[in-house]
Amino acid sequence: MIKNITGRVDFIESLRGKSATFILALSNSATSSIKGITQAGIPGSIYLTPTLDSEFICTGQVRSMPNIAETPKGVPTPALISRAIHTLNPFNHIELLDLGLEVKPHIDYFKLHNFDIKPSDAINNGANINALDIFSKATAFGQAYECKDEYIILGESVPSGTTSARATAMALGYECDKLFSSSFKDVPNSIRDEVVYDALKNITSNDDVFSILSKVSDNMIIFVAGFILGLNNRIPIILAGGTQMAAVLLVVNSILRQMNGKIETSNLSLCTTSWVYNDNNSDIKALINMLDFELNTYYSDFDFSSSTHPALKLYDDGEAKEGVGAGGCLAYGFLNGLNKEQITKKVEEFLA
Amino acid sequence: MIKNITGRVDFIESLRGKSATFILALSNSATSSIKGITQAGIPGSIYLTPTLDSEFICTGQVRSMPNIAETPKGVPTPALISRAIHTLNPFNHIELLDLGLEVKPHIDYFKLHNFDIKPSDAINNGANINALDIFSKATAFGQAYECKDEYIILGESVPSGTTSARATAMALGYECDKLFSSSFKDVPNSIRDEVVYDALKNITSNDDVFSILSKVSDNMIIFVAGFILGLNNRIPIILAGGTQMAAVLLVVNSILRQMNGKIETSNLSLCTTSWVYNDNNSDIKALINMLDFELNTYYSDFDFSSSTHPALKLYDDGEAKEGVGAGGCLAYGFLNGLNKEQITKKVEEFLA
Repeated sequence: MIKNITGRVDFIESLRGKSATFILALSNSATSSIKGITQAGIPGSIYLTPTLDSEFICTGQVRSMPNIAETPKGVPTPALISRAIHTLNPFNHIELLDLGLEVKPHIDYFKLHNFDIKPSDAINNGANINALDIFSKATAFGQAYECKDEYIILGESVPSGTTSARATAMALGYECDKLFSSSFKDVPNSIRDEVVYDALKNITSNDDVFSILSKVSDNMIIFVAGFILGLNNRIPIILAGGTQMAAVLLVVNSILRQMNGKIETSNLSLCTTSWVYNDNNSDIKALINMLDFELNTYYSDFDFSSSTHPALKLYDDGEAKEGVGAGGCLAYGFLNGLNKEQITKKVEEFLA
Repeated sequence: MIKNITGRVDFIESLRGKSATFILALSNSATSSIKGITQAGIPGSIYLTPTLDSEFICTGQVRSMPNIAETPKGVPTPALISRAIHTLNPFNHIELLDLGLEVKPHIDYFKLHNFDIKPSDAINNGANINALDIFSKATAFGQAYECKDEYIILGESVPSGTTSARATAMALGYECDKLFSSSFKDVPNSIRDEVVYDALKNITSNDDVFSILSKVSDNMIIFVAGFILGLNNRIPIILAGGTQMAAVLLVVNSILRQMNGKIETSNLSLCTTSWVYNDNNSDIKALINMLDFELNTYYSDFDFSSSTHPALKLYDDGEAKEGVGAGGCLAYGFLNGLNKEQITKKVEEFLA
């Protein structure tokens, strides 16, 4: 089942049975190397997570590391969910966006878009992103993008991305300190708070949107915001993610405010997981309600209640929650006739 | 599951969810009338097998004979597998190549390409093929071919085709006497050996590749080799077959050697069944490793272990093994979310 966060079901229902391109936005930030900030990967090798996720979603294999990215508590990457959907009811095309990867995925045949973007510094060190450069590359890409299918599902794999998402939205002036999600069930607030507040210290009253983004954001957020503005409602798109994708929309909102611009959003939407929607430590609906424009947003009502696998039960306990487009991929599965049991069984096969 | 024989999974994974045209190459050779040489059909009517297979794959009916081709032991044609896939997750197009049929299939609406090619003589009688004529028709066809889908799956139905495949590869100088498959579990080696060795006696040191092919090969092998060279890597293609398709590749290899030519093979692949891959009486991997070019090759890890039907258990015992594109069709099924149980059940329905 797909349920509304805001808006109505009509947008996503109109995509039922249509073909989709899955785009995965990948970037690294040195923020993820700060001890204890994320559990999205293998300690010491967190930077490999987007590389491994993209290898697994495309080929079913991880190549740049012997085993698939697992968190210390043993929570496997949500790429398992996205790959399960792709195995059961394939996307017609998968394309990867290299938005600053430490290690390029070892994949042939799949489209890997290269934009000459470098991984960013840690946000408590000022991030050092050329936001205007990334933004203009992204709008050009969005304007020129030719979709071979009827709509786009856009996911991300960015370790520590919820931390830079929170810093981004706060730096842009949104009242949202307690609204952002994380990959943890028990969020290590002291470390994350410290990093975010240190990052915000670099912001001055002279900063405009792009100089703020250059200091506290991440490459994915900036690029996807530019991509959306470049697309300009031309192709239906589902932002497949949680509070990071909400931050993308807040950036779009702030850019439009700064430019006194408007955007048609009838083809723009967001879809996340029920783990994000039901999370007590964050509030994606509140973030979406801060936007000046109306939007259809959704969550996929899926959980691992039909599984007995201990690693998967951790999702239902509140670990991991979202990533690699899991929420949007689940919606795509539901829109094409898959059910919870089939998806759960396929994910379990990967773990066997 | 699709597994590699050589290369990596990326090529075939990139085809997941994409639309395919199934092309079935059909030809007759008088070799198949030699008593005991093949069990690919009804004794006395073996020549009808490609006609019946093409009728069944397209329409689900056999029209040129009251019953579907069965071997004397009761092994049903692998067309059942290909038709099951087409029923569960259809190919977007099916096209037939008449490369010398005794009896044309009784089918309307489906594209039957006609090349004015006659059935060939038995290879121990010199075959009497105009290889250069078939080859030039095939390259022209490959150059002009417009695929309405994103890739091609090319299967064959050629009774006694493994015998002419073996003779072809040996006559071209490959060390492969014991590497070729057959439709039998217990291969009648004396008859097959005799026919192949008699055929090879017609080869002289003055023969070039095309005069060799004219004497010992079959129309399908020559045509598909020319088709591949004509396509020139322009469209992704899966050669759906076992050692006969390996012989096609060896012919391509020999033509390139003779012409001092090269071929780009990134869009060329082969996919067979696990029955061929695991066959103790043949070695498809060894044949592929004789090629001068790199190739992604696969087998579909499918068997009838979930069936209790005695006719299907014969496949797992080593009878039949491959044909009518079964291995490549199974891969297409897996790439589109089908599983072993669904496919087995559908094949059983046909036999009920």
